Amino acid sequence: MSGINDAAGAVQYVGELAGVFAFAASGALAAVRRNLDITGILLLAVATALGGGVIRDLIIGNTPPAAFIHMEYLGTAVAAGVLVSVWQMPARLSRWPLDITDAVGLGLFAVTGTLVAHQSGLNAPGSALLGMTTAIGGGVIRDVLTRQVPSVLRPGEYLYAIPALLCAIVATMLVRYVDYQPWMGLACAAIATVIRLASLRFGWHGPEPWYRSRTTAEPVDQ
Amino acid sequence: MSGINDAAGAVQYVGELAGVFAFAASGALAAVRRNLDITGILLLAVATALGGGVIRDLIIGNTPPAAFIHMEYLGTAVAAGVLVSVWQMPARLSRWPLDITDAVGLGLFAVTGTLVAHQSGLNAPGSALLGMTTAIGGGVIRDVLTRQVPSVLRPGEYLYAIPALLCAIVATMLVRYVDYQPWMGLACAAIATVIRLASLRFGWHGPEPWYRSRTTAEPVDQ
Amino acid sequence: MSGINDAAGAVQYVGELAGVFAFAASGALAAVRRNLDITGILLLAVATALGGGVIRDLIIGNTPPAAFIHMEYLGTAVAAGVLVSVWQMPARLSRWPLDITDAVGLGLFAVTGTLVAHQSGLNAPGSALLGMTTAIGGGVIRDVLTRQVPSVLRPGEYLYAIPALLCAIVATMLVRYVDYQPWMGLACAAIATVIRLASLRFGWHGPEPWYRSRTTAEPVDQ
Repeated sequence: MSGINDAAGAVQYVGELAGVFAFAASGALAAVRRNLDITGILLLAVATALGGGVIRDLIIGNTPPAAFIHMEYLGTAVAAGVLVSVWQMPARLSRWPLDITDAVGLGLFAVTGTLVAHQSGLNAPGSALLGMTTAIGGGVIRDVLTRQVPSVLRPGEYLYAIPALLCAIVATMLVRYVDYQPWMGLACAAIATVIRLASLRFGWHGPEPWYRSRTTAEPVDQ
Repeated sequence: MSGINDAAGAVQYVGELAGVFAFAASGALAAVRRNLDITGILLLAVATALGGGVIRDLIIGNTPPAAFIHMEYLGTAVAAGVLVSVWQMPARLSRWPLDITDAVGLGLFAVTGTLVAHQSGLNAPGSALLGMTTAIGGGVIRDVLTRQVPSVLRPGEYLYAIPALLCAIVATMLVRYVDYQPWMGLACAAIATVIRLASLRFGWHGPEPWYRSRTTAEPVDQ
Repeated sequence: MSGINDAAGAVQYVGELAGVFAFAASGALAAVRRNLDITGILLLAVATALGGGVIRDLIIGNTPPAAFIHMEYLGTAVAAGVLVSVWQMPARLSRWPLDITDAVGLGLFAVTGTLVAHQSGLNAPGSALLGMTTAIGGGVIRDVLTRQVPSVLRPGEYLYAIPALLCAIVATMLVRYVDYQPWMGLACAAIATVIRLASLRFGWHGPEPWYRSRTTAEPVDQ
């Protein structure tokens, strides 16, 4: 089993950096869409990629946050921003790779956020809440800075918070009630990734309120 | 006196949960008005209800924040979000109860924020500033996430920050200069609640700048 | 040398308060432009002036943040807000003094943020990152609260993050690799101030992405 776990640990580390890269790319692409210059692209890439982890570390009192200490996260985020600045990916190429890496990042951030929260002594619901917050926090920062309703809140955006929360809940239960092994975390993250991608592929949406008064509703555009 | 204080302590605990409930309901209703789905309603309810307290705890270094440890706050916020998701309150019913519970929450959060700040060693102006921040923080988060100028800043929104600040200042002076008793905190909170409700009832607004140049002004709509 | 350094220390303290004043004035003027009342003006002045330092202190775990302990910062910010509330500066007077004090604040906040980060044990890139964050944080809060894309991100806003980052990088190297003296910090801050002002005077902008697809771009207006 330890062979699998060593491999799983390495995969998780690489996957985390892939998640940082994907989140940074999503921030950079949002900046490009808004016509920002390279400074704006890099700042938004870094804020999107590192924001969720910084919020997580501040909440558990782990200061300074890992993003200010381990420079490979900052370096990866900057690299993604630079790449987006110099290479205009054809739309047909950028869509699926980005969706996939973003979904991978979502799952891995939810798991690592949950584990870090558990290690710092949070109880089960608190750990799951913080895991979800870690996974969705960067995207919320990106959308607030570009003056949008965060996509995690918008109804037309398919499932995003739900797979992150599911994954965080499962990870919390594993780490509390069974002999947690790294490969379990990877499996958790994979579940979130698959649900997210399936919701994109098959058009799954979250539940609507039981009623829906169209008369008082303002459309959420842009 | 201890009988009154025991009762006051119990009232404050119940009142705090009522404040969480009211703030959560205001977040959920803002989400409904924006046509968000149930995920969005619940996320906005939780962020609005727990945001002010999380900011308070981060600023005084009380990590992890109480909202991640004492699950009755999260549970109350989720319950308010679920209620708004399943039951479309008639407008004539929802207006006054919400305004009242929100005003109750405003006062109680201002008092508890101030007391927590004082206990952590902040000086008087710092405690009052943090008390006000606790009371208005959740609403600011709600409005930023739904892409509005925070209502606490908008001129057409009656008095909101002013009663919170008044209440926090009085609470600071009580806890520093007299033999503070819980019923005094309740009285403070009641003053803020009454001022807030009176400003709604009688149309009180905050002071305008001495001049007002209409030519350069952009209207703050929506 | 110590005579120069004593003078430099005093200048830095005065300059820091000047930076707080300038940032507060920019927040208050943004509030006036949005037609907010005096409550809104004061809240936005305080949030803009103290926001960057609070973020810095939370990230290095220095709680409660200095802005909640040393009341001269709060007092200076409130004074700037009150001044803007009572005196409508003629546009021809307000433009250059504000740009200059804001640029002075940018440089001094970048240096002090970097030094505080270094003293708390951050490595060189982390210190520079936090120095830049301190310098630009308040303005981002101001713009998010008034529902704008932060000016630090907008392409038409001349250089802002770049001089702050340059200054933070130079300050980091000085404090690590040479016998740091306060006058060096002042020189660093002056460089950032001069670059910022020169970019305003000569219309310097940050680099654009290598390509720029006008077809998919949405204009960033307002």
